[in-house]
Amino acid sequence: MANEAPPPLITLTTDFGIEDNFVGVMKGVIAGIAPTARVVDLCHAVPPQDIHGGAFVLLTGFEFFPPGTVHLAIVDPGVGSDRRAIALAAGGYTWVAPDNGLLGYALAALAAAGRLGGRWDDGWWLLADDAVAVALAESRYWRPTVSRTFHGRDVFAPVAAHLAASVPLEALGPRVDRVQALALPRPVRTEHGWRGEVIYIDRFGNLITNLSAAELGEADLAWNISVAGPRRPTRGRRAPLGDSPDFGAPIRGLQNSYAEMTGLGALIGSSGFLEIAVPNGSAARRLGVGVGCVVEARRR
Amino acid sequence: MANEAPPPLITLTTDFGIEDNFVGVMKGVIAGIAPTARVVDLCHAVPPQDIHGGAFVLLTGFEFFPPGTVHLAIVDPGVGSDRRAIALAAGGYTWVAPDNGLLGYALAALAAAGRLGGRWDDGWWLLADDAVAVALAESRYWRPTVSRTFHGRDVFAPVAAHLAASVPLEALGPRVDRVQALALPRPVRTEHGWRGEVIYIDRFGNLITNLSAAELGEADLAWNISVAGPRRPTRGRRAPLGDSPDFGAPIRGLQNSYAEMTGLGALIGSSGFLEIAVPNGSAARRLGVGVGCVVEARRR
Amino acid sequence: MANEAPPPLITLTTDFGIEDNFVGVMKGVIAGIAPTARVVDLCHAVPPQDIHGGAFVLLTGFEFFPPGTVHLAIVDPGVGSDRRAIALAAGGYTWVAPDNGLLGYALAALAAAGRLGGRWDDGWWLLADDAVAVALAESRYWRPTVSRTFHGRDVFAPVAAHLAASVPLEALGPRVDRVQALALPRPVRTEHGWRGEVIYIDRFGNLITNLSAAELGEADLAWNISVAGPRRPTRGRRAPLGDSPDFGAPIRGLQNSYAEMTGLGALIGSSGFLEIAVPNGSAARRLGVGVGCVVEARRR
Repeated sequence: MANEAPPPLITLTTDFGIEDNFVGVMKGVIAGIAPTARVVDLCHAVPPQDIHGGAFVLLTGFEFFPPGTVHLAIVDPGVGSDRRAIALAAGGYTWVAPDNGLLGYALAALAAAGRLGGRWDDGWWLLADDAVAVALAESRYWRPTVSRTFHGRDVFAPVAAHLAASVPLEALGPRVDRVQALALPRPVRTEHGWRGEVIYIDRFGNLITNLSAAELGEADLAWNISVAGPRRPTRGRRAPLGDSPDFGAPIRGLQNSYAEMTGLGALIGSSGFLEIAVPNGSAARRLGVGVGCVVEARRR
Repeated sequence: MANEAPPPLITLTTDFGIEDNFVGVMKGVIAGIAPTARVVDLCHAVPPQDIHGGAFVLLTGFEFFPPGTVHLAIVDPGVGSDRRAIALAAGGYTWVAPDNGLLGYALAALAAAGRLGGRWDDGWWLLADDAVAVALAESRYWRPTVSRTFHGRDVFAPVAAHLAASVPLEALGPRVDRVQALALPRPVRTEHGWRGEVIYIDRFGNLITNLSAAELGEADLAWNISVAGPRRPTRGRRAPLGDSPDFGAPIRGLQNSYAEMTGLGALIGSSGFLEIAVPNGSAARRLGVGVGCVVEARRR
Repeated sequence: MANEAPPPLITLTTDFGIEDNFVGVMKGVIAGIAPTARVVDLCHAVPPQDIHGGAFVLLTGFEFFPPGTVHLAIVDPGVGSDRRAIALAAGGYTWVAPDNGLLGYALAALAAAGRLGGRWDDGWWLLADDAVAVALAESRYWRPTVSRTFHGRDVFAPVAAHLAASVPLEALGPRVDRVQALALPRPVRTEHGWRGEVIYIDRFGNLITNLSAAELGEADLAWNISVAGPRRPTRGRRAPLGDSPDFGAPIRGLQNSYAEMTGLGALIGSSGFLEIAVPNGSAARRLGVGVGCVVEARRR
């Protein structure tokens, strides 16, 4: 019926992969608590323990879900330690995650869009009145037995399911006034343009950078883009070294689409970030670079 | 309740993989427009930009879904160019895809089964009265902002969701009388039998060919099958070269099942095509072949 | 509405992978028969034909789903032979699988928890009055045409869907009084402790063994754990050989969590089994071991 409420929606973002039954088991737990909730896999291929990678997946995905969605994200190297876990109502969504910075990129984007108050301060997001966060403490919303190593199953999935089943956020534990928030590395102004870095490599081998349309505009042909080699040990997915890494020849201009490229090219991608790509090939493999490599944009 | 309409169903076939959040984001967009629609992943592991591979996945999958299903397929090397995108009502299903030939194998199968009129002509399917196609043009059924590189999210997912939510096909854009249609390579008659080729390699390393029960019958012991090496550069998934590629020793006879095979064997597989397989192993790896290799069936 | 029955739930556990459309097609078949059923992927990455691997995935997953769930499991090297296929009501769940031992670990766990009668006898579980099993024989609950190679699509998916749609188990075929049941290898008492083996390797490279809290207790610091190299050819997922396989240095004590480990460590994992792990790394790769390797626990 048209005026029936849509089923509650829960997204899952983890580094659990799909080789095992971890994700399936979480869905079983959710189904037992919130049988009508829909669960959507946002991504389970975050590299193990890569909080930055998880933050990027959330950043580029969260806003495409309808308001009210519960975004459950788990990249949790500290599981079993005394690291805090949180639930957060912010920006029209409910977020559930370990309190390790994973939500940082998304919170900054909400703030930049005027949908979230508060401010970032040295690794924390200090909440304003328009957001509410709690530390997960009320174990009656968890599984009766909680393992030391799989809070996804024993704490996070049941909490997300209870939220989807209309348990109020405040019931889950005591209020907190801040949550940890990783910050996206910022592009740096240079004499002739901008210096940024590769922050993500996608399945096609496209290099996604932290340079964006805000710095470079759309499809501006007057930029030269060059990759300047690794600045620090790469993290996240690495590309195997290509045959002829050559950072010398800059890419001339930003294209409108992959289809316009005749070789290594650059464009503003679907998330608003500068991407370096090769049509029908992998730029990561071609250049032999990984996350963390420096990318220079230089005005011609 | 028994007489309630079943929830609308949308299948997804893409080359997006599951390493990133592309697929999850599309599901978010769909959920915002058609909250009760069910989304089923048909396959996201089509090799990047391999339209033939995507066409094969659709061919062998589409008919197992109930009538009325919306089949959304995206393998789209031309995204951002002026390539057309289409929606098509044909054979009891609604199809949404870039107009690049991706639906070709499925349309031919529908026609062969007497479920679709019209005819194939030099890369196009010329539609008859029993099918309706439109070019996607009405941007009010898209996301408000359309990127140049991710029409899956910005055009195709919203269009499929609107169709699932009962928007009429004709509302999406102007009628067109033909859609692009790849043709499955045809087996060739030889003096003593048939010559075909490997058209797909599955997860088990089974070689699926374009020879079918129509040419070879079922479980006919009088065929010798041999793999004759690559005819042209392989595409799609490639198998690593095996230890001892040996195309000389033909496989004797078609078996009934994998369980009957004692070594490299052949049978008519679950899609009606001749498959070359090894029990508990990979025929692709054993023979070191890929998509495009020639396969000979010779009468003994 | 609160007192509406939750939608029926079907889990899928297979070795089909997600590179092809096998799983998607099964979901299409299910949707045609039981349109409101929810389908959850428990795992599709069981190594091809590895019945032990599938049994482990079921063992560690089944109980996290609500009672009434239909657990459909397919690892079926004998497909197309005269191997039996079964449906089984046991322990509050309905199970559908080839009768090849795949359910064995889960049945033993149900029995150990007092939720299933009967007993194991030389590869079979002899059912008591609290369970009902049938051999799948009534072809009217299958697809009209049954291939020799894909019973997942043609037999198992339709049967699971009919069960979810309230067809009684007994309608599916004749009663049987026993089902095949693989037994988990048992740890062996040694002079100073226990000898077990690696039974599973997860996505993080953690080595899961058949030693459990029952033998070792939780977080007991008085155990030395050592890996003693392969006892027999490894099966299931294999780890590439690490740089310096060194089985000599025992791991001292069981930790509480991965976060407590400073190097190679051991703990009782989320499924109650002893795991050997490396924080932010792969123990399988570090030690160069696979499923089947001997693991010794020795009292200090």
